[in-house]
Amino acid sequence: MNSWIETPSQSDFPIQNLPFGIATIPSGKTVAVTRIGDTVIDLAKLEQMGILNNSGFDFGEVFGQPVLNQFIDLGKEAHRALRRRLQEIFSDTNKDQNQKDTLKTSAFHSIDSVTMRMPVKVSDYTDFYSSIEHATNVGKMFRDPANALLPNWRHLPVGYHGRASSIVVSGTDVHRPNGQTLPPGADQPVFGPTRMFDFELEMAFVVGKSTQLGESVSAAQAEDYIFGFLLFNDLSARDIQSWEYVPLGPFLSKNFGSVVSPWIVTLEALEPFRVKGPVQDPEVLPYLRTGGLRNFDIQLEVMIRPDKGEENLVCSSNFRHMYWNICQQLAHHTVNGCNITTGDLYASGTISGPEPGSYGSMLELTWRGTNPLTLNDGSSRKFIEDHDTMIIRGFCEKDGLRIGFGECKTKALPSR
Amino acid sequence: MNSWIETPSQSDFPIQNLPFGIATIPSGKTVAVTRIGDTVIDLAKLEQMGILNNSGFDFGEVFGQPVLNQFIDLGKEAHRALRRRLQEIFSDTNKDQNQKDTLKTSAFHSIDSVTMRMPVKVSDYTDFYSSIEHATNVGKMFRDPANALLPNWRHLPVGYHGRASSIVVSGTDVHRPNGQTLPPGADQPVFGPTRMFDFELEMAFVVGKSTQLGESVSAAQAEDYIFGFLLFNDLSARDIQSWEYVPLGPFLSKNFGSVVSPWIVTLEALEPFRVKGPVQDPEVLPYLRTGGLRNFDIQLEVMIRPDKGEENLVCSSNFRHMYWNICQQLAHHTVNGCNITTGDLYASGTISGPEPGSYGSMLELTWRGTNPLTLNDGSSRKFIEDHDTMIIRGFCEKDGLRIGFGECKTKALPSR
Repeated sequence: MNSWIETPSQSDFPIQNLPFGIATIPSGKTVAVTRIGDTVIDLAKLEQMGILNNSGFDFGEVFGQPVLNQFIDLGKEAHRALRRRLQEIFSDTNKDQNQKDTLKTSAFHSIDSVTMRMPVKVSDYTDFYSSIEHATNVGKMFRDPANALLPNWRHLPVGYHGRASSIVVSGTDVHRPNGQTLPPGADQPVFGPTRMFDFELEMAFVVGKSTQLGESVSAAQAEDYIFGFLLFNDLSARDIQSWEYVPLGPFLSKNFGSVVSPWIVTLEALEPFRVKGPVQDPEVLPYLRTGGLRNFDIQLEVMIRPDKGEENLVCSSNFRHMYWNICQQLAHHTVNGCNITTGDLYASGTISGPEPGSYGSMLELTWRGTNPLTLNDGSSRKFIEDHDTMIIRGFCEKDGLRIGFGECKTKALPSR
Repeated sequence: MNSWIETPSQSDFPIQNLPFGIATIPSGKTVAVTRIGDTVIDLAKLEQMGILNNSGFDFGEVFGQPVLNQFIDLGKEAHRALRRRLQEIFSDTNKDQNQKDTLKTSAFHSIDSVTMRMPVKVSDYTDFYSSIEHATNVGKMFRDPANALLPNWRHLPVGYHGRASSIVVSGTDVHRPNGQTLPPGADQPVFGPTRMFDFELEMAFVVGKSTQLGESVSAAQAEDYIFGFLLFNDLSARDIQSWEYVPLGPFLSKNFGSVVSPWIVTLEALEPFRVKGPVQDPEVLPYLRTGGLRNFDIQLEVMIRPDKGEENLVCSSNFRHMYWNICQQLAHHTVNGCNITTGDLYASGTISGPEPGSYGSMLELTWRGTNPLTLNDGSSRKFIEDHDTMIIRGFCEKDGLRIGFGECKTKALPSR
């Protein structure tokens, strides 16, 4: 399928993608949008034009809201109906030139002319720890190299609650956080800016359907409750983290800012890129068992761009490495009756691959600063420096089809 | 000051209290309310009657909302103006019999005729760990009795992010959660209902003013950002907790339900009950230093009522025992730029006193089940059993003035 909207050959956004986001368009309105190539399409305008009536769904005012939660809450049937209708309208088999001309003049905006916003109001946010390579690397560095994985790790998808309020959209810059740390060899903590500012390469899924307290979602049903995926940068301050995290987990080392990409790519768009996950040994408990292809082959990259400098590729990883899949994460999260809400975000944890160049954090890439990276401009990095921009990109590619996520970008500003 | 509304002598709710809540009244409407004695007062009706006009504030539609967030967001000046105006109207110095008769017939409801609702939409919820007795008891049981407190504990108010979606109002019953546990001596986990269902006696404060990402709230400013207090029962599953909590903290052992009392008692009402907190040794870092009286003398009780049985007092504690005060908690939480939102809840952590009968959880009261409690009916308890009702009560008393919180009640239902 091709679109009559011009789509650059290596675009993340062919007509097979149709991600959803929220944009402030040149008129100043903030509306729900989708995207083909570099063209942002105003869904509120499409609804007003009556052009979505044929979808079989009444979308009412959902596209005029400042977040996608109401749209997402309409359910999978509505999302699929909209996707089918958008593919009809924007496919090159559409020969209605009048309609196309009207769309171009009233519903299309160049990506450069809009400002992308947080796509959802996040009710609750959970961060998992589901990459075996990442958990092993951290265990080797901070605990026992011979027993790097803790005893529970292969039995359940370890996770913790994170901060919803400080999740921001790509393009939002974040100050280096202040906090307490215990300098090496000291017996009293000191206060000041973190000296170990880090990124974490992650993906997050957006919950598409709410449950009531006491209900569980089985691993088999889980995908019915998942709307789509985002890129996620779980900014971290490693020195604050190592001092604060016992016994209740990471707190101020994480909640100063987390960054999401603006486009939610739906499960439907990712269908062609399903793959089998790693073998789980020992076998997991029955409520965590899943069949079929529950991992996704999504290539991931992290770039660091120093102030006024060029991008440096520092990590190439893949979402397919995840030991625990999204169905297992959601089944585990709700097995005790914990209720979920449309718009919740569930992040993967750092996605590290098996090779050193595929590690998803500076902590691992430089092995806690002992092996600094050298950038193109000759400077070296143990961790992130002020004015460095971190950029995560992600895309799937197969049989000439590329579905991507765009980018998740944030600059480290100096501490306040 | 006395009210012309009948107020039982040991009531938690004299005219000096004036807590805020949300109730569904007999007409079916859900509105903001306050309470004197056993009389619930419809604030939306007072606003409609024009009787609040003299307060100097326009409250608009805030009392017709299903949660108090919009009202709280109006700020301290508005809350204080409303409090002054309510005290004028309901004081026995008010001689306007016409007004009183109208109020009685149109704005008053007996507490038995209304259903109390969640008072706020909780954006983010954090649980601290600020009782030194509780942290010491847990450290003795689970780690090293000789070094029960971890090295960071006296330097910062340890806390972690909890689940906002599963916070429910008093009177909501909660099922015993299922989950993974590692039985003593086993090397493989099993799945099933928790065998260590517990309560945690806590208080929580409600945030009254939002900040932007990157802003900090100093310890000196912190009370400007705090609206009031609730009773809080942080339900816990100890066997799930001890298996899951390393290294990222408690997760499913906590997020199956937490219970709040329906009435938010404001800082203004608690003014007479301020007391000095414990001496902090070693001295804390400058950003955590506070002067004045930052603790509150609030007597706390936990009762267990078996199915069809009587209440048993199992714990008497006091909020004054907290090692870390609320100003320190909020200053710490935001020192890295983490933004807060009106309606956020920040819970204290289990409030244990120095004596065994003052421990705020079954875990501590029965010392991990090794020393069961005997109830009035002769039955014994290591932890909470199915159909047990847990009731937390809290009140301040001084010079003949009693300000209370009512109760925070929940029944343990069998696992699903």
